[in-house]
Amino acid sequence: MSEQNVPVRPRVAARTSGLVRIVGAGLLGSSIGHALRALDVEVALEDASPAQLRLAVDYGAGRRATPDDKPGLIVVAVPPDVTASVIARELQTYPDAVVTDVASIKLEPLQQLRNDGVDVTRYIGSHPLAGRERGGAIAARADIFRGRPWVVCRDEETTPADLSLVEGLALDLGALLVEMSPEEHDRSVALISHVPQVVASLLAGRFVTAPDDALSLAGQGVRDTTRIAASDPELWVQILEGNSAPVVDVLDALAADLSTLADALRAPDEPGARRAVADAIRQGNLGVERLPGKHGQNRRFETVVVMVDDTAGQLGRLFGELGELDVNVEDLRLEHSPGAQFGLAEISVEPAVVTRATEGLAARGWKIASLHD
Amino acid sequence: MSEQNVPVRPRVAARTSGLVRIVGAGLLGSSIGHALRALDVEVALEDASPAQLRLAVDYGAGRRATPDDKPGLIVVAVPPDVTASVIARELQTYPDAVVTDVASIKLEPLQQLRNDGVDVTRYIGSHPLAGRERGGAIAARADIFRGRPWVVCRDEETTPADLSLVEGLALDLGALLVEMSPEEHDRSVALISHVPQVVASLLAGRFVTAPDDALSLAGQGVRDTTRIAASDPELWVQILEGNSAPVVDVLDALAADLSTLADALRAPDEPGARRAVADAIRQGNLGVERLPGKHGQNRRFETVVVMVDDTAGQLGRLFGELGELDVNVEDLRLEHSPGAQFGLAEISVEPAVVTRATEGLAARGWKIASLHD
Repeated sequence: MSEQNVPVRPRVAARTSGLVRIVGAGLLGSSIGHALRALDVEVALEDASPAQLRLAVDYGAGRRATPDDKPGLIVVAVPPDVTASVIARELQTYPDAVVTDVASIKLEPLQQLRNDGVDVTRYIGSHPLAGRERGGAIAARADIFRGRPWVVCRDEETTPADLSLVEGLALDLGALLVEMSPEEHDRSVALISHVPQVVASLLAGRFVTAPDDALSLAGQGVRDTTRIAASDPELWVQILEGNSAPVVDVLDALAADLSTLADALRAPDEPGARRAVADAIRQGNLGVERLPGKHGQNRRFETVVVMVDDTAGQLGRLFGELGELDVNVEDLRLEHSPGAQFGLAEISVEPAVVTRATEGLAARGWKIASLHD
Repeated sequence: MSEQNVPVRPRVAARTSGLVRIVGAGLLGSSIGHALRALDVEVALEDASPAQLRLAVDYGAGRRATPDDKPGLIVVAVPPDVTASVIARELQTYPDAVVTDVASIKLEPLQQLRNDGVDVTRYIGSHPLAGRERGGAIAARADIFRGRPWVVCRDEETTPADLSLVEGLALDLGALLVEMSPEEHDRSVALISHVPQVVASLLAGRFVTAPDDALSLAGQGVRDTTRIAASDPELWVQILEGNSAPVVDVLDALAADLSTLADALRAPDEPGARRAVADAIRQGNLGVERLPGKHGQNRRFETVVVMVDDTAGQLGRLFGELGELDVNVEDLRLEHSPGAQFGLAEISVEPAVVTRATEGLAARGWKIASLHD
């Protein structure tokens, strides 16, 4: 990281009497703790699990909370199903603090608070789009928010001072602020996160009873498509139930698309059937093009494919020599084959340096395959 | 590649009077040509497109076919919709040759040949599970079959000599032989390739009309899930229509799973609803575990996450130092964030070397995040 990314004075510290309280010392809570500690902000941690709390403190995410703490900002980072009740408790216990949360659903906790008659003036929901496949304090790291979107949901009652405190937290941690209403947020994550999870899980679920031989034909495509199916069931039940209406909307639309396509394949000679199949694939082309890639742009890189032996040091030599050639690797993918003792490194580079990369690597004895984009 | 992988005398050359004829000089045909040329086997190429043929010859995939050619083995590598008619023509034109094809569906061409009264004794269908996102002679490379499964579909009429010729081709090119009936093959690829393509395409198709803000929240999960949605519509229409019955079977099962889940989310208080949601995610866990990973095993590696600046040479230094530490990289993934000028390299290593890797890298000044799985 270059030093310019580190604010001289943390925004969040300017207004919090130097203390941020974090409730829930799992992956997100502990990661926020680590990031704030790196900025010299005082952090008080609390967790329902003594073991998790001990781990988070030992790893340096903050100190244990004490009854005398006077936090200016409280971050609730607990599982979705207890988020609302913890927010309510914190608002009541700390009448001078601004309370935010990091739950991946935003409407349900807010509605629950309102239903319970809680004054939510000092509550501002937020959601950092950061995470990892594994959770817990042990997986925490200070940098998981850098460059990632962080949604902040203001409402009419939100004061500018309170808002800038929560936004300051996101900015201090290097995240990219996105302002949305809770409804917009929940519809967005249903489409871009929750339904992809469902689809990957259901598809992978079909492999449970498949013959070994069929699975032996699996390639990188299906592995990518189902990678997130390895996610935690307990967390996902809470997320899906907490955001059920928007998720069901997208699932219904997807089920309709599926049955249109299945019908077209069942009766390919019906009018429009062939076109329906082609349209499904073509719309997929257009949709995937719209996903932001690296640097938030839909930039197209060229790919150079290099064969690498499966021995220590081979990738080192490859990337070392790419560095010597002054070629920046924009993205890379290692492609493996079952049973093979080697892989293919697919390296994405700027179009302008493709020739330099391929010729330079070939001259150094690498087996280069042809390019594609 | 170590020399032991290169056979002293190609199996395929032992029985083909030194000539293999390849019809269709696209990605697969040209790649087979390159691989055979590397083994000093004579290759005669033909393609309906003069431009594609010229490209394949120029790139060294073989020479142009001539009317006097006496091939012992013919490989038909044309689009699925013309595969059967080209096979029939080749069987008739070359009465002494064994004919195979590489189409990704196996039952339909065989049925079409039988319906047309073609004697298929000398035809043995096959399917190398190799490919790339982009096709054409220009994307061809000799090594795409190495370590990949290559399905060979024998039947009762197949002679051992003919079978060993087609199997010899697969083995000469470094592929892993898998024997299946055409029906087994088509059911397997429907599950492991064709339906994942449909699912990725339909999911990505939902992004076409989504607001920019929603898409800005996309992370690596949805990018992986929809990566193959970038595939070629023309090819996929042919594949899906050619394998429609097995594909529709899986799509129907998946649609039923989807509607079970959507119903459970619509009425979470119904008996069994919560369990249905949890089961969907849990079955996904089990299914994805069954997919073969590197080296054909479900081995679990540990992941070390290292922060890398987005500058040329950073990955080179990283992998160079991993080589110095004698740490072999089993797999890796670069994780990017929109708007960020850096990435996270997730490096999979053997559990036994995790400590050496993390301590060694940390001692050399790398920012290491904690491990997971």
